Formats: sequence, structure tokens, C-alpha cells
Amino acid sequence: MPASSALLADLSRAIPPARLLTSPEDLIVHGYDGTWLERTPDLVVAVADADEIAAVLCVAARHHVPVVPRGGGSGLAGGSVAFRGGIVLSTTLMGKIVEIDREALIAVVQPGVVNAALQAAVERVGLFYPPDPASLNQATIGGNVATSASGPRCLKYGGTKDYVVGLQVVLASGEVQRLGGRSHQPGPDHNLLQTFIGSEGTLGVISEVTVRLLPRPASRGTVMTTFDRLEEAGHAVGRILGAGVVPLALEMMDRTTLRCVEDYLHSGLPVDCEAMLLIDVDGDADSVAEQVAIVARACRDAGASTVRPAESPADAAQLWRARRSTSSSFGRIRPNKLGEDVSVPRSRIPAMVRAVQEIAARYDLLIPLFGHIGDGNLHPNILCDLRDRPEMVRVREAARAIFAAAIANEGAISGEHGIGVLKREFLPDSLDPNAMGLMRRIKRALDPEGILNPGKVLI
Amino acid sequence: MPASSALLADLSRAIPPARLLTSPEDLIVHGYDGTWLERTPDLVVAVADADEIAAVLCVAARHHVPVVPRGGGSGLAGGSVAFRGGIVLSTTLMGKIVEIDREALIAVVQPGVVNAALQAAVERVGLFYPPDPASLNQATIGGNVATSASGPRCLKYGGTKDYVVGLQVVLASGEVQRLGGRSHQPGPDHNLLQTFIGSEGTLGVISEVTVRLLPRPASRGTVMTTFDRLEEAGHAVGRILGAGVVPLALEMMDRTTLRCVEDYLHSGLPVDCEAMLLIDVDGDADSVAEQVAIVARACRDAGASTVRPAESPADAAQLWRARRSTSSSFGRIRPNKLGEDVSVPRSRIPAMVRAVQEIAARYDLLIPLFGHIGDGNLHPNILCDLRDRPEMVRVREAARAIFAAAIANEGAISGEHGIGVLKREFLPDSLDPNAMGLMRRIKRALDPEGILNPGKVLI
Repeated sequence: MPASSALLADLSRAIPPARLLTSPEDLIVHGYDGTWLERTPDLVVAVADADEIAAVLCVAARHHVPVVPRGGGSGLAGGSVAFRGGIVLSTTLMGKIVEIDREALIAVVQPGVVNAALQAAVERVGLFYPPDPASLNQATIGGNVATSASGPRCLKYGGTKDYVVGLQVVLASGEVQRLGGRSHQPGPDHNLLQTFIGSEGTLGVISEVTVRLLPRPASRGTVMTTFDRLEEAGHAVGRILGAGVVPLALEMMDRTTLRCVEDYLHSGLPVDCEAMLLIDVDGDADSVAEQVAIVARACRDAGASTVRPAESPADAAQLWRARRSTSSSFGRIRPNKLGEDVSVPRSRIPAMVRAVQEIAARYDLLIPLFGHIGDGNLHPNILCDLRDRPEMVRVREAARAIFAAAIANEGAISGEHGIGVLKREFLPDSLDPNAMGLMRRIKRALDPEGILNPGKVLI
Repeated sequence: MPASSALLADLSRAIPPARLLTSPEDLIVHGYDGTWLERTPDLVVAVADADEIAAVLCVAARHHVPVVPRGGGSGLAGGSVAFRGGIVLSTTLMGKIVEIDREALIAVVQPGVVNAALQAAVERVGLFYPPDPASLNQATIGGNVATSASGPRCLKYGGTKDYVVGLQVVLASGEVQRLGGRSHQPGPDHNLLQTFIGSEGTLGVISEVTVRLLPRPASRGTVMTTFDRLEEAGHAVGRILGAGVVPLALEMMDRTTLRCVEDYLHSGLPVDCEAMLLIDVDGDADSVAEQVAIVARACRDAGASTVRPAESPADAAQLWRARRSTSSSFGRIRPNKLGEDVSVPRSRIPAMVRAVQEIAARYDLLIPLFGHIGDGNLHPNILCDLRDRPEMVRVREAARAIFAAAIANEGAISGEHGIGVLKREFLPDSLDPNAMGLMRRIKRALDPEGILNPGKVLI
């Protein structure tokens, strides 16, 4: 439904007309995310600052029109797709790194700054911003905050929630709110700050983010290792952590993933093992050498069939090529995938991987699985073809079975992708029944008219 | 005012009479915390489980009586003192470590478990729980969560908020709520979980806590160093972090603190320097040796007048004796102290320390200052005598001036002690005006009758 002329007239009093986008092309390119979910919004507003965000929210409230904040559109749960129509509020023009303070170790950024751009900017001055979702070349910091994104490095360094020290948020009422500050220490409103991290645009629109930074580690090392049995891979993780080494990344690929990737790369991957691990460590050069030795020993002691430390950065990049090629390799096999995201306690990883294998067999689907094994965050990818209706019925049932298996294994149905709409229906199974009511109460307190990203997270 | 017989009758239907405490002795020992604030409650209920907490809250709501949760009573902001009378709900009987899972690296504890008891229990099995408030021998995990407590180690390892992965919370309505779970990865209700961390008993009563654990580092090293000028100490911190070493602890004592401690210990402390730092590093033995060398070099390069690495664990303990003796040494000089807690960006530490010195001179008070310099969390202690009324007027004005200086230096008025009542009146100066309204909205949504710790945090 096109935006009403009354709505457009009200908006054009606050926003320059060039940034009120209504052409079919503009609407279409703001109607998708990193899933296969699509819905063309009625209108796109490309905002330039917090005051404009506030103006859009006030006008939207008057017209009872939903507002869906959107950054890079790389979300994996439909959170930035305007399923109920209304306004997509795009933050991509707010792409400025406001400040990098090397003394205070903080950066202040507008919400539309792309994650990789922030990483590159701070690394140029010897600093380090650890959160690294796979979509880092597209995903914005605002979106990272809204989904509480993390990535491989979060085992050692934590995710977005651990780096945000200050937020500017525009509430549904149009109030511009500052939470936290510039100190690395949590302030008196820390719990309020955290309420917005991972709220997926349902409680407010993030208009500025202050993150803490670390000194950039001098050196990095990589070990590739394979295991004939999943349980051995689990033991290796326990031994590595038990030896006091916390790897930067601890990535696992299961046999199905390895076979998909090998079919694509033909690089001689070990397709008969049950699991391959890629383990990165960082620190100064001596410490890295020592950590690599400890990791290699721990893997051998756990029964690894191969243990191969990278001999150079180029060699490490080659080892990581397999992990980075998963999505491309899946695309060769089936046109679509449902990229899932569950997390389970570390000790339940082998059980969870076997459960996914059993579900793949039961529903006759190919479900390669990889993930951040160090913290139990697994990504089963259900390969499929959206045009194949009977298959899509099985995909849906398999997804449900995977969530049930995660919950049965004391896990959660979202590790790092958020809930959005894709997993909304599974949320009540995953949470304490009271928690849903509590979420609703907070939502009503902050957005009584329900204009902020309606239909997301909560049903 | 003693508890009404109707209230007692209702409570005794849910709680065994032996745990409804009404004797003057029982009331007095539940009427203080780690500050000088005191107020005898009308009644103390020592609860044994979440159901009993729920029952107490339901009865209290019916009788419109405030409920103040209390753990070890070591708080430093009056948060667990029942200033408006009513029920002190003591969790000290809920002192069981329910589970330590070595595979999943988590511990599940009741709220009344003392921090040091948890640390000792996990260390016995080779694990590590980093948050270590100075009150660790008295403070409970429930209280740590309620105040979002941290401690010296938080520079490297983060504070309580970074370790809580699951909570059971009893809401004002009596609903028992589970948030989070057992996974180290944040779940879909992570932002809700964080809402309760640092809420100081105003949003719910914590009835169980699940924390993540780390492998215990094998070794530790200590460096003591002194600086003639504060700015040099600040530069040393920058150089240490810049060299890629993140110390376990980075504690500073200013000249006034050193003089107080030396008068008490007579151990030959360097009383003429502007700052002494104690720097601890941890890891495996080789890495510790290397980190100690890097720290020592960084301090020398920054202009340190003394750099002395500890030669043994006994030597390190001796070096730390000065830091651990601060409170005792202050007690020799004046009977009372207002132990303050501000945090500023690292780059503002010298300015903040000088501001405190200037405030001490202006109000003719002795204000030793020490703190976790690595993350800018400083503890100015205003020494005083509660019986000296003119002095207490100056103490109050000095405290206000210190908060103003923290805010002027882009800091916050609470680093790790919470707001409670002690700093409530300063909160509106410290926060965005809208943030106060937002806090009130969430409070009303969760505790519409206002029975949970009324008068705390919010005015």
C-alpha cells in the first residue's frame, strides 16, 4: 500500500523530500534482509540525524504507521523487514565515525557505520574492535547493537553487548535518550543501556553508539585439526580451555559441511572425519607460538587424526578459506538455505550435532552444520529450494525439530542472529512463559502505541 | 514501627515462624550496610527458596508493605537498608552452591552464596570466577548481581554483568521468572536478563544465579611502581595496554592514601610520590614472566621513580598488604569515612585526582584516593567523624563537588557500588533527564504497587 499523501506531507515538513523514497526501485531494495523473507515497505525514510529520527517517529505515531529501523539489511531473522508495511527508517546515511579516542580507548559512531569500516579505522591507529559477525562488510554497528551480534572472536573477546558503553536512542515518543557514557566502567544506567541491546528495534531507534576498544594484539596463529569422532573434538576444546588458552576463534565444520565445501573448492579437505576445527590464537609473538604448541598438544591428546599449525599468515588464510567458502558451496547445491542459529552448553555439542544429523535423515534434507564450538553457538544450514513446496514443508518441520533439540539440550534458539519474525513462533517454547509477559510489559511501557517494529520478537 | 499482627499472621501461613524475625536484636543486625546508614526494619524474613520469596511479595503487596532484599549487608550505597520500614527479606539461608559443571564451565548458585565461597569452590576444581569486590568475604552473589559489582580484576575479566548467564527472579507480582540459561552465548532474552543486573532490588528479587566460569590461570606476577607525577602514572597505563598486556589488576594509591597507610604499617612506603601502582598479570608461567618484563619496561619508559617486580608470591602478598590496609589505616585517623566511587575515562584520571585534591583543600578534609586505574574507577574516601556536625556539612558538600567533577570529566557517579539512597539525589545530574523517566516507566511496568525496595535508585 503506498504511503498516504497526508503522511508524506507531514514527513516532508521534517525531512528533505530527496530522502523520502517512494519509487518502486527504492522500496524493493529496502524490502529484504539476509534471509529469504521479503516485504516491500510503503515508504523509506533515509534519516540524517537523531532529530530526524524523532520527527519520523512522532509523525508515524500520529498516523499509526509502523516504523522499521534498517541498517545494512544483512540480518538473519527478518528483523528489518517491514512485514506490516509502513516506514522503513534507513540509517545508512548516518555512516560517520564521529571520534576515535586513543587515550580513552573508545570510538563514537553513527548507527550506519559498517562493522568492517570501524574495525579498519581503529586498526589503523593500533586499536581493536573485536565483534565480527560474518556479515561484517555489510552489517552496521546500529544493526549489530539491535541484534546483539557477535561472531567467531566472541569466545575470547565477547560480543557487541560487551563493547557498547554508551548509546543514544530515540524512543517511540520522540524523546532522544542518552544512556551510559564514555567510561569503560558500567554506569548507574547500565541495566537500562543493556535493555536496548538486542531489542531489535522494538524499544527504540539507535542513533549513536559509543564502544570501548582494545589495544590491537601484535600477532596471530592458526591450527587446523580433524577428528574421527565428534566427542573427541569436544574433548579437545575442553583440554585447550583447561590448559588456560582462550582461542580468539574456535570454529567447527561437520562432515556434511566439509563435503559441500570440498565439492566446491577441491582443496583436499578431509571429508571422512566427523569434525574439522580451525583454532586461532592471538597475543604477542612469543605467546602465540606457545599457545599454538599448547593447542596442538591438546588436540593430539584428545585423539585428533590431523593437527596442522599454519606456517605463515598466507597458510592460515588458506586454511580459513574452507570456512569462508561454506555459503558459496551451499549455493552450488541448492538455491536457498535456512541458516539457523542455536546455542547449547559446550558439553552438549556432540549430542546437538548428532540430533541435527538425525533430523536431516528423518526429513530427507541436507543440513550442513558449522559454528563457534568454543561457546556452543552452532549454525545448522537447512539447504532447500523455495519453489519446492513439499520440501519447504519438511524444512519448516526440521527447523522446529532443531529448535526443540536445542531446548532439550539446555540451549537457546538464538545464539547471535536474533529472533525477528523467523523465530518468533518458537520463542514461547524457548523462554519461561512469564518472560514473554515481562517482555510485553516493558514493550508497552516504552512504546504504548506499538509503532516500533511491530510483530518482531514478540507475537 | 513493629509489624502488624495481620501481616505476621498472613506471613506465617507461608513461612515457618522460626524464620520470621521480630526480636530487637534480629532487627538491629539487619538494619545497616557497609555505609554508616542505618534503619531498623519492622520485620526480617529469612527465606529458604523462590516460592517463599513469592509468598512474601504477595503478602507484602496485600498489606502495602515495602520489601527490601538483603544479602551480606556489605553494600556501599544503602541499597539494602529499609529506610521506609517494612520487611527486610534476607537471602543468607539460600547459601547453597547448587552445581558446578566443569564441562559446561558454569556454576548455579543460590543468591546467599558468599562471593569468596564460590571462588574457593570453583578454584578447587581448577576453574575461576573473576568478579572480586573488596567485600568478597561478606558480599553474596545475589547482592553482587543486584549491584552489578565488579572489583580489581574487572579490567581484564569484566564484572558480574559479564558472568551472569542465567537468573531466576521473583517479580513483585510473585511470578517466578527464569531468564537466560546455561549457555555462555547470550540468549533471546539477554537484554531482559541484563535489566535486572544492577537494579538493586527495585525490579525483582534474585532467587538463583547461573554464572559462567573460566579455566583457572596457572600463574600470577606482580609489579610495584611509583611515579613522582600523576600524569606519568597515566602514561604508564597507556603504555602497558598499548604493549598488548591487559593486567589482571592495575591499582593506584595516591599520596594521601600512601601517607595514611604508612602511618599505620611503617613499612617504608614511598610517601613522597604522587602515585603508587600495583600491577598484577596472570597466565601460564612463561607468559607471566614476559608480561612482567613488558610492564616494568613500560613503567620505566613512562618515567617511574621505582619499578619493583615481586620476587615470590610471598613478596607479592607483602606488596599488596599496603593496598589491603587502606580501610584499617583510615580508621586510625578518623572514625568514619564516606567511601566514594566514581568512574572517568582513563585519559581524565590525572584531572580527576587533582580535582579531588583541590576539593580536599577547599573543604579542609582528608580525602585519600585509590582505585582501579586501568578502567578509571576511583574511590575517594572522605574521612570524617559523624558526631562532628560542621564537618559533616563540609563532607556532604565535598561529596557533591566530587560527583560534579566526575561528571565534568565525562565520568559517572557510580563505578561499582550502585546508587542506593546514598547517591540517589545526584542521579538526575548524572543521567540524561529522559533516562530517569525511562527508569520510572520500567519500574512502574514491573512493580506497579512500588513495594520492591522503594526509595532506592529512583526518587
